[in-house]
Amino acid sequence: MGLPQEKEQEHGFMKLALEQAQMSLDDAEVPVGCVFVRDGKVIAAGRNQPNRTHNATKHAEIVAMDKLYAEHGVDTATQRWFADVVLYVTVEPCVMCAAALRIAGVRRCVFGCRNDRFGGCGSVLNVSSQQQDGSLPVLECTEGVYKDEAVRLLRLFYSQENANAPRPKKKSNRKVQCT
Amino acid sequence: MGLPQEKEQEHGFMKLALEQAQMSLDDAEVPVGCVFVRDGKVIAAGRNQPNRTHNATKHAEIVAMDKLYAEHGVDTATQRWFADVVLYVTVEPCVMCAAALRIAGVRRCVFGCRNDRFGGCGSVLNVSSQQQDGSLPVLECTEGVYKDEAVRLLRLFYSQENANAPRPKKKSNRKVQCT
Repeated sequence: MGLPQEKEQEHGFMKLALEQAQMSLDDAEVPVGCVFVRDGKVIAAGRNQPNRTHNATKHAEIVAMDKLYAEHGVDTATQRWFADVVLYVTVEPCVMCAAALRIAGVRRCVFGCRNDRFGGCGSVLNVSSQQQDGSLPVLECTEGVYKDEAVRLLRLFYSQENANAPRPKKKSNRKVQCT
Repeated sequence: MGLPQEKEQEHGFMKLALEQAQMSLDDAEVPVGCVFVRDGKVIAAGRNQPNRTHNATKHAEIVAMDKLYAEHGVDTATQRWFADVVLYVTVEPCVMCAAALRIAGVRRCVFGCRNDRFGGCGSVLNVSSQQQDGSLPVLECTEGVYKDEAVRLLRLFYSQENANAPRPKKKSNRKVQCT
C-alpha cells in the first residue's frame, strides 16, 4: 500500500523544494530551496541566492515571496490570500524569514531539517508562534519531511567549502551563509 | 551652548528619517522612515511602503537595504562593509527587520520610539542582541531620538485611519500595517 494521498502530495512538493536546493548547491550557495503552494498548485519556487544577488537577505523564502508579490499584485496585499498558501522548504526558516512569512499571513509551513544556527520556528527563537500582535496569524510548522535529504545537501556544501578552503577561516570573518 | 557635535549629527540624520516617515504618511502608509549612514554620509533612505508596492514586507529598512545591495553590489556581500553603517529609523525595527539587519552585518541602530506591537529590538522579541550564531554581529540600539515626533506621526496616521473608516474593522481582517 502506498502513502495516503495527502502525504504523497506533501512528499511531491518537498521533492520540488529539494530540486531548488540542489540548484543552490550547483551555484555554490548554501543549499536551501522552497515552493509555495495554493489550491494544490505550485505558485512560486525559490532558492537561496545571497551570493548570486549580492544580497545577504535573499533567502529561498524571500526570493519566492518577492516573485509572488510581483506577480499577484493587489491580491497579496491582504493576509486572506496568504491564508491558503502552504510553504514547503527544505530547511527550517530563519528568524527573518519566519517573521516575513507571518507578516505576509502564511499560516502553514512544512520543512525538512532544523536550522540549529538561525532557526526562527523553534530552534533558536520561536518567531513562528510567538505572540506579537493579534493581527499576525501564527505560522504552524510540520518538520521532518525528507529531512535526511535536506541535511545531505547541506553536508555536501560544507564539505566542498572545507575542501576548497586554503586555510581555516575565522568565524567572525566568514561571509554570511545563514539559511 | 549647543549640542555636542555627535548629538547634533544624530539629530540631523533622524530629521531626515522623519522626512521619509512624513512621505509615508502622505502616501497613506504607516509612517516610518529611515536613513543609512556610512562615513558620516547618508548612503540610502527608505520609507514604509507595503501598500504602494503591494508587498507587506517592504518596510522602510528593507526598502533602503534593497537599494544599498543594488547600488553597492559586491561590497555589501560581506559583513565588514556593513560594520561601518549606522541606521537611523523613526520606529524600533520589527522582528523581521532586526533579523535582516543582523544578517547584513549592521551593528548600530538609532531609533525614535518603541514598537510595542512588533518590535524586534527589545519590545516584543530581542532579536537585535539574541545569541543566534557567532557569525551574526549584535545590533546595538540607542532609542529615544525625536521619539515624540515619531509617535506624533503614527498617531496622525491612526487618527486619520479611524476617521476614514466607515465602520470598525475586525482585527483579523485588517491589512498588515506592522512597522
